Amino acid sequence: MADVIIPSRILMGPGPSNIHSRVLQAMALPTLGHMDPLYFKLMDQLAANLKTIFRTSAPLTLTLPVTGMGAMEACLVNLLEPGDEALFCVAGFFANRMPEIAKRLGVKVHVLETPWGGNTAPEKLAAALKANKIKLVGLVHGETSTGVVQTNLPEIAKLCHDNGALLLVDTVASLGGVDFETEKWDIDAVYTGSQKCLSAPPGISPLTFGPRAEDALKKRKTPCASWYMDLGLIRKYWDETRAYHHTGPIHLTYALLEAVKLMNEEGHEARLARHAKAAKALQAGFEAMGLKLFVEDPKNRLATVTTVCIPDGCDDKKVRKALIDRHSLEVGGGIGQLAGKTWRVGLMGEGARANHVLILLSALGGILKAEGHKVHAGAGVEAAAAVLLT
Amino acid sequence: MADVIIPSRILMGPGPSNIHSRVLQAMALPTLGHMDPLYFKLMDQLAANLKTIFRTSAPLTLTLPVTGMGAMEACLVNLLEPGDEALFCVAGFFANRMPEIAKRLGVKVHVLETPWGGNTAPEKLAAALKANKIKLVGLVHGETSTGVVQTNLPEIAKLCHDNGALLLVDTVASLGGVDFETEKWDIDAVYTGSQKCLSAPPGISPLTFGPRAEDALKKRKTPCASWYMDLGLIRKYWDETRAYHHTGPIHLTYALLEAVKLMNEEGHEARLARHAKAAKALQAGFEAMGLKLFVEDPKNRLATVTTVCIPDGCDDKKVRKALIDRHSLEVGGGIGQLAGKTWRVGLMGEGARANHVLILLSALGGILKAEGHKVHAGAGVEAAAAVLLT
Repeated sequence: MADVIIPSRILMGPGPSNIHSRVLQAMALPTLGHMDPLYFKLMDQLAANLKTIFRTSAPLTLTLPVTGMGAMEACLVNLLEPGDEALFCVAGFFANRMPEIAKRLGVKVHVLETPWGGNTAPEKLAAALKANKIKLVGLVHGETSTGVVQTNLPEIAKLCHDNGALLLVDTVASLGGVDFETEKWDIDAVYTGSQKCLSAPPGISPLTFGPRAEDALKKRKTPCASWYMDLGLIRKYWDETRAYHHTGPIHLTYALLEAVKLMNEEGHEARLARHAKAAKALQAGFEAMGLKLFVEDPKNRLATVTTVCIPDGCDDKKVRKALIDRHSLEVGGGIGQLAGKTWRVGLMGEGARANHVLILLSALGGILKAEGHKVHAGAGVEAAAAVLLT
Repeated sequence: MADVIIPSRILMGPGPSNIHSRVLQAMALPTLGHMDPLYFKLMDQLAANLKTIFRTSAPLTLTLPVTGMGAMEACLVNLLEPGDEALFCVAGFFANRMPEIAKRLGVKVHVLETPWGGNTAPEKLAAALKANKIKLVGLVHGETSTGVVQTNLPEIAKLCHDNGALLLVDTVASLGGVDFETEKWDIDAVYTGSQKCLSAPPGISPLTFGPRAEDALKKRKTPCASWYMDLGLIRKYWDETRAYHHTGPIHLTYALLEAVKLMNEEGHEARLARHAKAAKALQAGFEAMGLKLFVEDPKNRLATVTTVCIPDGCDDKKVRKALIDRHSLEVGGGIGQLAGKTWRVGLMGEGARANHVLILLSALGGILKAEGHKVHAGAGVEAAAAVLLT
């Protein structure tokens, strides 16, 4: 087989995002042993930087050598035992994976469904919590399948706690790009991915467990069903015990540490403002161009992934192929019930910048025009540029 | 916290091993999306190269986004269901993790123990297989805790099959450094790590399932207890379905692909001969120096990790610290019942070379002499050099 020449892509799908050259260079540093005292120092620095990003002081804050989906499973397998009852708020593709995983663990699963495009209403959650004895509520903060952000998280957390339930939140596509406060909002367990708003390579995933989640670990009656994901063992590799459990993903640790340092150098407020402005510009651009945004209520729109409706008669795959072939630009297709109906445009981490917004609008506008669609390509770029200059 | 300056280490512990600069450079190439057709081509190339290294043509040959311990769990969770009976041949620390994992899966676990330093005798395995209805036998090919290689694998495979059991073999520390033939020896399921004899970064792990293991997957009555590790889902990301399951560990894929290409450029026979000669030189050097090898029978010695007894009165940690501080050279301490009693010296992948052998013998000899131990440091180096020149 001939070698593949790996091109530079403009990554504007729902992840991975583009990676800063400081992070790529850090990844290629020489290998340390996973029990080297210098590597332990890097783990400590990573945990400290992650606490800043999660906005928490929880001691149980670390990374797992898995992707975001592995972190989802790790949270569920540590917090739930066979026979427990869990309630999942499902308003998209990714939240639906939580009940799939939990069922395999012998958990009694309840699902609170919300039509795609909306987000979970606290009053419906309150009713569901009253009707059952729920140990854990799971939901997704930024649902990339729909482009919706779950609002009301402090209220939802309070509802959960008033009913004796833990709240587990997936921030794979939101942490570091959208406002999220683990401690202030009183969220019990949170995980994220590395390759989205953190702009690090995939394969390593941060999580944090607060006091209620810690307590649930202590009160388990059965061992964690997964040895590989057992936080009781893994935390002893991260704390002063330094007990060997797995080989730390050394080079991914270098990369993620550099990525979170970059984030903390930029600062929390500046970073969120950058994401918000880029998203506002993109969304204004789409609307000025004549395209319809899938999420109607602006306050429900996820800044990091915008879902835009594919115009009638437009060949989804042909357009995305033209973006890749002509501009080396990746956007995501729709997923699940939105396949063929929406595009998913990511502005995450390093990618949440003016240049990405403008190149996507101009490239997509040109392709749609050439395909005979009535779009106002120039107006889209002008509207976005105006927002970007504010 | 001050930044850590990451030094160049000579990695001679039981993994990770040193990584070729071509692999480090490949890892830092630009990010591709995990659903990019170019990334699919890389996955195909990786699978093809891995088949050459596993010595198999099995279609179900792929990598998982986990470390070697995750691959161990993935094999067990896919091949076993609650109520199944499994037999684990335990002659060291790592094999003992298999029953730990299997118990959590609700499997009825049998253990055939062999004192550390030996390996499993086929006649004892035969008796254990006759006495129980075993679905799967698990063992470790190269046990780094003891430095023993499990011989007689073709005979063991036949015994398993004659008794209707599958054979699962851990080759985390052996594949690519020690003779291993998946198909010729008729092994049903094999996994390995990336950071040992393959000399790639940790966090991605190859495995291969042959026809009997495939059949066991088809005959499952319950879903795989782990969604993240479910090979029925993961294989659809690797085959022409290209169904999204997880975000491929993109940069680790680049790195591992480059590493296995390097291996296949060197060639199977040349690579094994290089490992064998380096180990023979190191072991001759230790003996000429006056140190005792832990594994008495030379044919049971693992070429990739040599266990050498720590001399009486020697301060284990002080010596290893001096190797790190003075020579930036890492060797492993003993593990489990051999903690404080042995050193574990790895010669794996890129590290299985004459220069590593000679620097370890001269550095260790000097340190032991300075500590007042009666070692023939020069004789050790001379004996090793003589073997290396053959």
